[in-house]
Amino acid sequence: MQLVIGNHNYSSWSLRAWLLLRQFDLDFETVRISLFVPGFSQQIKQYNPAGKVPVLLDNGTTIWDSLAICEYISEQHLHNNGWPSNPALRAHARSSCAEMHSGFMAMRSELPMNCRRHVDNFVVSAEVQKDTDRICTLWNEALSQSGSGQFLYGDFGIADAFYAPIVFRLTGYGVKLPKPLQAYCDRILALPACQEWLKLAQQESEVIEEEEV
Amino acid sequence: MQLVIGNHNYSSWSLRAWLLLRQFDLDFETVRISLFVPGFSQQIKQYNPAGKVPVLLDNGTTIWDSLAICEYISEQHLHNNGWPSNPALRAHARSSCAEMHSGFMAMRSELPMNCRRHVDNFVVSAEVQKDTDRICTLWNEALSQSGSGQFLYGDFGIADAFYAPIVFRLTGYGVKLPKPLQAYCDRILALPACQEWLKLAQQESEVIEEEEV
Ligand SMILES: N[C@@H](CCC(=O)N[C@@H](CS)C(=O)NCC(=O)O)C(=O)O
Ligand SMILES: N[C@@H](CCC(=O)N[C@@H](CS)C(=O)NCC(=O)O)C(=O)O
Repeated sequence: MQLVIGNHNYSSWSLRAWLLLRQFDLDFETVRISLFVPGFSQQIKQYNPAGKVPVLLDNGTTIWDSLAICEYISEQHLHNNGWPSNPALRAHARSSCAEMHSGFMAMRSELPMNCRRHVDNFVVSAEVQKDTDRICTLWNEALSQSGSGQFLYGDFGIADAFYAPIVFRLTGYGVKLPKPLQAYCDRILALPACQEWLKLAQQESEVIEEEEV
Repeated sequence: MQLVIGNHNYSSWSLRAWLLLRQFDLDFETVRISLFVPGFSQQIKQYNPAGKVPVLLDNGTTIWDSLAICEYISEQHLHNNGWPSNPALRAHARSSCAEMHSGFMAMRSELPMNCRRHVDNFVVSAEVQKDTDRICTLWNEALSQSGSGQFLYGDFGIADAFYAPIVFRLTGYGVKLPKPLQAYCDRILALPACQEWLKLAQQESEVIEEEEV
């Protein structure tokens, strides 16, 4: 498989797909395209007419959206185990991810993912606070339902990959979280795959001005 | 099962879930909440803390996002047949729906779904035209891959339910489409379930000013 991604530092949607593949130790090759540089659009359109990363190429099949990629990987390469097997938890996990896929606009635009950036007392707007509160509610529900697991629904799964960019944002901008949720963030950040991603972000030199808020 | 929806006239996300359930003849009851009237927020929060419709209630399980509802229905009630069974078509269908779930912002805001409204020569912005072109590309790809089927990927499925609000928008605002795509829209509109939804929209009297562009 080939996974086409954007800059490690900025590309939150790429991180989701990449982290799922890496964390489940699947065999794939990364094609990195630098976002928004001259020629980006032409380059990405060779893979995906929608013009966005990430894109997964698997044996002639193109899958071009992070959520669709995760569903595909779960079905084709993880025996459906990308989501928890319990139907109620599975429905909760899918709802949480689909809610994020179509929402959290304030968090996205005001706290863009920027792995290299660490801010101590970033002041968040009321809208971002609303998104943060909602995310805390979701995480609390997930963690309390999933028993003794380390991750949102017990074992690591798609929901953790999907919320990893949020973990990077909240911790990077120094947003204060209740202890058990900070502990969850710490567990995500400690994953070797996340450390690898952060290191790759450090090594990049491109700067996208609009993302440097 | 109970499906909590908004106004038939305006609630595009509700239509997706409702149409899937109805078209597959599943047994469910509809709970309609009038969007944005005083008390809406309190009412919907009894079912869904995220405060949005649609919400599916099935035997104690709450699923609160249209895409998650469709995935849940496919797995739990349709033997996984909400999506095409061929893996490449399945990946294409999921990508198309996930792309829509997180995109087409111009179409959403400038051409809000309004089942009762029919405009003859609505002038669309460049951004809406871009969304329309992309949708035409997706539909063409889907229809050409799916053989002789009547619907996007052959038989009626989640992708058709997901794109039905787009069909209602494009036809309602009189956007010109290539013949085969207009024919696809006509087939969707002719479904008894769609006729039922349109009739229910006609019977409603609430007017949401912001949606009357
Ligand atoms: N729904 C898509 C969104 C992907 C997306 O917006 N990717 C951004 C980078 S993180 C992108 O490629 N932007 C390029 C552009 O919009 O031109 C997904 O989940 O994969
Ligand atoms: N991602 C959600 C979005 C649902 C949504 O935005 N629903 C609108 C009505 S169509 C709503 O309930 N809006 C109420 C509000 O935002 O307060 C889904 O797919 O179900």
